[in-house]
Amino acid sequence: MSIKPSIPKGTRDFLPTDFAKFSYVKNIIEEHFKNYGYVEIKTPSFEKTQTLSGKYGDDGEKLIFHILNSGEKLKKSDKSAFNSNNLLDFRNSISDKALRYDLTVPLARFITQNQNEINFPFKRFQIENVWRADRPQHGRYQEFVQCDADVVGNIGPIAESEIINLVDDIFSSLKIKNLKLKINHREILNLISVYVEEANKFKQLTISFDKIDKIGVNGVIDELINDGFSESAVDKIKTLLSFSGTNDEKFEFLKNLFKNQSLSDSCFNDLKSTMDLVAKLKTIEIEFDFSLARGLGYYTGIIFELVPPNGLDIGSIAGGGRYDNLTNNFGLKNISGVGISLGIDRICHVLEILNLFPIKIFQSIDILVLNFGDSFLKDLIQHIQQWRKNNQKVLVYPSNQKLKKQMQYANHVQAKWVVFFGENEKNNDQLNFKNMITGKTISYKFNEFNISNFLNQEKC
Amino acid sequence: MSIKPSIPKGTRDFLPTDFAKFSYVKNIIEEHFKNYGYVEIKTPSFEKTQTLSGKYGDDGEKLIFHILNSGEKLKKSDKSAFNSNNLLDFRNSISDKALRYDLTVPLARFITQNQNEINFPFKRFQIENVWRADRPQHGRYQEFVQCDADVVGNIGPIAESEIINLVDDIFSSLKIKNLKLKINHREILNLISVYVEEANKFKQLTISFDKIDKIGVNGVIDELINDGFSESAVDKIKTLLSFSGTNDEKFEFLKNLFKNQSLSDSCFNDLKSTMDLVAKLKTIEIEFDFSLARGLGYYTGIIFELVPPNGLDIGSIAGGGRYDNLTNNFGLKNISGVGISLGIDRICHVLEILNLFPIKIFQSIDILVLNFGDSFLKDLIQHIQQWRKNNQKVLVYPSNQKLKKQMQYANHVQAKWVVFFGENEKNNDQLNFKNMITGKTISYKFNEFNISNFLNQEKC
Repeated sequence: MSIKPSIPKGTRDFLPTDFAKFSYVKNIIEEHFKNYGYVEIKTPSFEKTQTLSGKYGDDGEKLIFHILNSGEKLKKSDKSAFNSNNLLDFRNSISDKALRYDLTVPLARFITQNQNEINFPFKRFQIENVWRADRPQHGRYQEFVQCDADVVGNIGPIAESEIINLVDDIFSSLKIKNLKLKINHREILNLISVYVEEANKFKQLTISFDKIDKIGVNGVIDELINDGFSESAVDKIKTLLSFSGTNDEKFEFLKNLFKNQSLSDSCFNDLKSTMDLVAKLKTIEIEFDFSLARGLGYYTGIIFELVPPNGLDIGSIAGGGRYDNLTNNFGLKNISGVGISLGIDRICHVLEILNLFPIKIFQSIDILVLNFGDSFLKDLIQHIQQWRKNNQKVLVYPSNQKLKKQMQYANHVQAKWVVFFGENEKNNDQLNFKNMITGKTISYKFNEFNISNFLNQEKC
Repeated sequence: MSIKPSIPKGTRDFLPTDFAKFSYVKNIIEEHFKNYGYVEIKTPSFEKTQTLSGKYGDDGEKLIFHILNSGEKLKKSDKSAFNSNNLLDFRNSISDKALRYDLTVPLARFITQNQNEINFPFKRFQIENVWRADRPQHGRYQEFVQCDADVVGNIGPIAESEIINLVDDIFSSLKIKNLKLKINHREILNLISVYVEEANKFKQLTISFDKIDKIGVNGVIDELINDGFSESAVDKIKTLLSFSGTNDEKFEFLKNLFKNQSLSDSCFNDLKSTMDLVAKLKTIEIEFDFSLARGLGYYTGIIFELVPPNGLDIGSIAGGGRYDNLTNNFGLKNISGVGISLGIDRICHVLEILNLFPIKIFQSIDILVLNFGDSFLKDLIQHIQQWRKNNQKVLVYPSNQKLKKQMQYANHVQAKWVVFFGENEKNNDQLNFKNMITGKTISYKFNEFNISNFLNQEKC
C-alpha cells in the first residue's frame, strides 16, 4: 500500500530554488557576522526540559515541542497523573527533553556550562533551526531558522551601536532600502508605568504596548482599561502615544515628564551614547519609539526592532537588545549581553516582494557533459576531473538518453556550457563546447583542450 | 533556585574551535558536491510518523525520536491502550510526528511529493542533522550531521563511478591518504545465498556479514550456525570468506562458483562498468569485498563503504549505493537512485587523530580595536567600517578595560593586528597598528590611513 506523501503542518520543503534564496541571505548575514568578530557555535537541537521551562512566559511555554522518551523509558509513565488528567506531570513522566524555542536561552545555558573554556567578552553567532508549535499561517512556520549574534561579558554602549552598524551593513548588502530601526529602553517603560502611577501593572503595560502594530493605539487603550488601569493613567498614556516629533524632541518631552521622579534616568544617557557611536548609516533610519516593548521578558536595557520598508505588511524582521541577568537562572551572575536575532524567512519574503534576489543565485551548473555512452565518457573523465579541479561545476548527464532530452535538461538547469563528445567528435579528435547563451559552438582538439585557457578566453 | 546547566545525553555543544573544525570539513564536502552538479535542498527536521515507519527495520525503528502532540491534543490519548500497556497504540495517540532518522527516506518522500517541480535526473545534496536514540558512546551521538548526495532518475553506471571520483576528490582535499573503498553488489550476496542453498535466509546472511568488522569471520560463522544454516552452507561460506586475492581474481573465483546458477550475473558487469569509468584515483584504493552487506535494506545494486586508513579503529566514514525502489512506498514507481552519505563527525575524528586540521582555520580575527573609551571609538568608527568593507574581520573590544586585559584577549582570539587609538595617538594624530606575530608597531597619520594600501603592503 502506498502512502500519499505529505509533511507535518507548519513545515516545508526547500526546493533548489527556495534553498538558493535561503542560502543567499544566510551567506550575507554570516559574512557580516564574521566581519564584526563573531565566531560560530552550535548547540543541540533539543535541551533538557528544565533548561527551557519558565523562560518564555505562559504563552511561549505552550509552544514548546516535547520529545517522548524512547523505548522502555516510556513504560515509566505516571499512571495516576494520567488518569487524573494532570497533563503536565504526565508529560514530564514520559518526556525529559524538548526542541529549542529560541537560541538565547540555549546560549545562556551554553555560557554557564562552558564558562571555563570561553574567553570573555564572548562574541558568538549561531544560525540554526528553532521550533514553535504556533498556529501555522502565511509566512509563519513551526520550524524556522534564527540568525543570532550576541556579545556577552562586560560591555559598554559600543555593543549596541555596533549591532546597529552590523544590521545596516547586512541590509545594505541585501540592497533593501528605507528600513526603520525602532529603539527604546526597558527602563523608559518602567518610568512610564511609574509616571502613570501603575508601576505594579508594568507587565500588562508592556504586553499591551507590544501589540500596538497589530491592534493600534485604540486597541492598546481598550486593553489597559480592561486590565484596570486608572482613568488618569489611561489619559496620560493616550497623550504619550499621540506625541510625535524627532528623536531629540521625544527625549526632551519624556525627560520633562519624568523630571519629578526619583528614579534614575540613565536610560537616556544609554540611548544617547549608543546613537553617538553609530556610523553613518546607509539604509537604516533610527526612530526612538518609547512604546516599543518586545515580548520577551529577559531584556533589561536598550531594545530595538527592525521594520521593513513602508507598505510591507510584515512584522519586524530583526530584533534584539541588552539583557543583564540571562545566566542568573543557571547560577552565573553579573553577565551582560547584547544581541540581535534576524528572521531569515521574513527577510526572504521581503526580498521576494521587492524582487531583489539576484538572478545569478540560481545558476548552478557551469558545464553539462552530454552522455553519448560509457565508452566516450571513459575517454572524457580525466578532462572532466581537471575542470572540477578548476572549480567548475560539472554535471555529467547520468544516462545515455536521447540528445533532445539531454539538451532540454541543460536548459532546465541553466547550464552555461554543454560539452559534445560522441562518435563524430571522437572520429575527428574534437571536443565541442556549446555556449548556451549565445548558441555558438567552439571546437577544440581533444588532447589540446586546456581549461585554464578556456576560462581566460571566456573572461575576455 | 539555580539549575546546574547540562545537556541531554548523547548531545554536545560545539565551542568555537569545535565549530571551526566541523565547518572546515563541511565546506570542503559542500564545495565538491557543487562541483559535481548537485544542488542543495532542505526538508523538515520532523516528518509524519507514517513517513518514517517501516523503513529502517525493527532495530532502526526503535531509535526514532517521537514528538509529543502539543497542547490540547495531548488530551486525545488512548486511555485503553495506555492501561493495557499497548505502548505502540498509546504512543501513536499522543504523537504523530518524529525527528528524521536519515536523509534518504525524507528524500524519497520529497521526490514523490514534489515530482512535478523537479527536473530528472535530480542531483541533490543535503547537509543536515539526523537523530537516533542510540546508546551514546565514544564518538557516537544521538544528534549528528549527515552529508548526503544522491542522483535520482534514469541513471547508468557513470553515477556510481562519479561518486567514487567525488569521494576521492573530497578526501584528497582533506589530505587523508590510504583510504579503502570497499565495493560489492547486493546481487552477489543473493547469489551467495543461492550457492549455499539458503536463499530463504538471505536476510540473516546479510545481517551477519554486516557485522564482520566487529565480530570477525568466526563470529559470523557462529551466528550463521545459530541461525540454522546447514553444515555444508557454513563450510562453503568459510571457504568464501577466507579467499583472498586481487579484485580480478575475486571476480573470477566467484564467477566460477556461480557458473551453474541460472540467476543473472549482470552484477559483475555493473561492477566492471563502474570501475572502468572511475578516474585515476589520488587517495582511494578500491577493494571488491563480496562480504560487504550494509545494514539498510533499501539498496538493490552496487554498495560501497569507505574505510579510514589502517590502524584507526573507527567504522566506515562514508557509505552508499544504488537503490531501485525507494519511492515505491510513496506510490512513485521506476525511480532509481545512487547516493553517498558522509559522516562529518567521524571524518573530524580521523582528522583529529592524524593531526590534519590546518592551523589557519582557527584564525578568526584580523584586526582587534582596543577600547580607550567612547570618545576615541567615535572618531574611529568610520575607519572601522571601511576595514570591514574590505572584508577584514574587525572586533572592537566592547568595554574600556585595562590595556593588559585587552591585550590578553587579543592573544586569546589570535588577532593578527591590534589597533591603538587613545589619548596619545589622538594628540599626535596617529593610528597605530601592532602586528601580533612580529610584535612590530607601524604608525600612520590618522586621516591618511588607507586600508587597501595597508593590505597590499602586508602582502609584500
